[in-house]
Amino acid sequence: MFLGKVIGSVWATQKEEGMDNLKLMVVQPTDFQDRDAGATVIAADRIGAGVGDKVIVSRGSPARMLFEGLKVPIDAMIVGIVDSYEVASPDEGE
Amino acid sequence: MFLGKVIGSVWATQKEEGMDNLKLMVVQPTDFQDRDAGATVIAADRIGAGVGDKVIVSRGSPARMLFEGLKVPIDAMIVGIVDSYEVASPDEGE
Amino acid sequence: MFLGKVIGSVWATQKEEGMDNLKLMVVQPTDFQDRDAGATVIAADRIGAGVGDKVIVSRGSPARMLFEGLKVPIDAMIVGIVDSYEVASPDEGE
Amino acid sequence: MFLGKVIGSVWATQKEEGMDNLKLMVVQPTDFQDRDAGATVIAADRIGAGVGDKVIVSRGSPARMLFEGLKVPIDAMIVGIVDSYEVASPDEGE
Amino acid sequence: MFLGKVIGSVWATQKEEGMDNLKLMVVQPTDFQDRDAGATVIAADRIGAGVGDKVIVSRGSPARMLFEGLKVPIDAMIVGIVDSYEVASPDEGE
Repeated sequence: MFLGKVIGSVWATQKEEGMDNLKLMVVQPTDFQDRDAGATVIAADRIGAGVGDKVIVSRGSPARMLFEGLKVPIDAMIVGIVDSYEVASPDEGE
Repeated sequence: MFLGKVIGSVWATQKEEGMDNLKLMVVQPTDFQDRDAGATVIAADRIGAGVGDKVIVSRGSPARMLFEGLKVPIDAMIVGIVDSYEVASPDEGE
Repeated sequence: MFLGKVIGSVWATQKEEGMDNLKLMVVQPTDFQDRDAGATVIAADRIGAGVGDKVIVSRGSPARMLFEGLKVPIDAMIVGIVDSYEVASPDEGE
Repeated sequence: MFLGKVIGSVWATQKEEGMDNLKLMVVQPTDFQDRDAGATVIAADRIGAGVGDKVIVSRGSPARMLFEGLKVPIDAMIVGIVDSYEVASPDEGE
Repeated sequence: MFLGKVIGSVWATQKEEGMDNLKLMVVQPTDFQDRDAGATVIAADRIGAGVGDKVIVSRGSPARMLFEGLKVPIDAMIVGIVDSYEVASPDEGE
């Protein structure tokens, strides 16, 4: 999974099967010093993440497995809203 | 998923099993400020996306699951045509 | 999927289960202006692609699904030989 | 899999189904000369990895298969704590 | 799949379920001119690859399918030891 910050949402009327009733958030991946880390990702959200929230995003088929049995063609999902973290800089961690 | 802009299409006569009757579009990934963000992707389309449309693309095995039961060896699918989005710059989002 | 150009082939005598009788081609990913776009990929081919051909390559587990039921541990497959494409430059596409 | 160093952990109260009782560690990918190699990854841990440990991380759906039958939407897992390694520099290895 | 050179091996005593009796090699991805091409990968090996060997590595869930039915949480596997290859430079290939 990766850490990111929710920076917005996207709407689509014309969409594939299984994309109905999905809230799609725009997530900017960040490092733990709150600096941007790569391109934005569009992730589905079912746990109520809002703009500004730090979140944990899971990608690939694991993200989709929550909908097993249903055809939901997503490849990224918000799986947690971060309360806190404790991270040493790599140098301190030795 | 990622945001992109449809910039063309590709045709292949000689192809693998399961690739028949698939419309293959060329998508340029972009950020939400409409700047290019990485290499173009060839994605299957069933929802009528055209050149110039902003789209949401899903990759990997989730993309293929819409064809479950059929052997369709694709790894990227247009899953939505974007109507609108609301995105704060990462700095504003705090 | 991505666009690439076949630039060669690879042979291995000592190999894993399920890798027999597979033609393995070396593909250089390119953009639609024929410029290199990232590291070469080794992809299986069953449709007769040859050196110099422009091809469409699918990656990950979708690539392998053509062999469903068999243990074929490949992660990249040539799924089409490109006849033609029509691609606007991102700027023209607006 | 990739080599990394555990540099911290993350907590989330609000989370997706299947994320309960999972210890989530922050892993900095490194090379075998202990230099950072790319963005941090959030990986689940069941084998007791602690801050400062060198670990092996597996990504994608293989990581999740340990929970087969359960809906655990993770895409990265610590699968080993490294005791030792023996690595030639690419030039020596010839 | 990608081409790489075996540059070492890794040992872990404390490990996840399904990681027993697996030989874990360190592979440096290379291009066909023997130049390094990206970060090292830890790949499982069952075909007897040794330090200095050029190998073909498969990633993701295809790699794991050789162990289908067993819980082996690996995401990279050495699937062939390269005997020879024939690769045109992209420019010659036209």
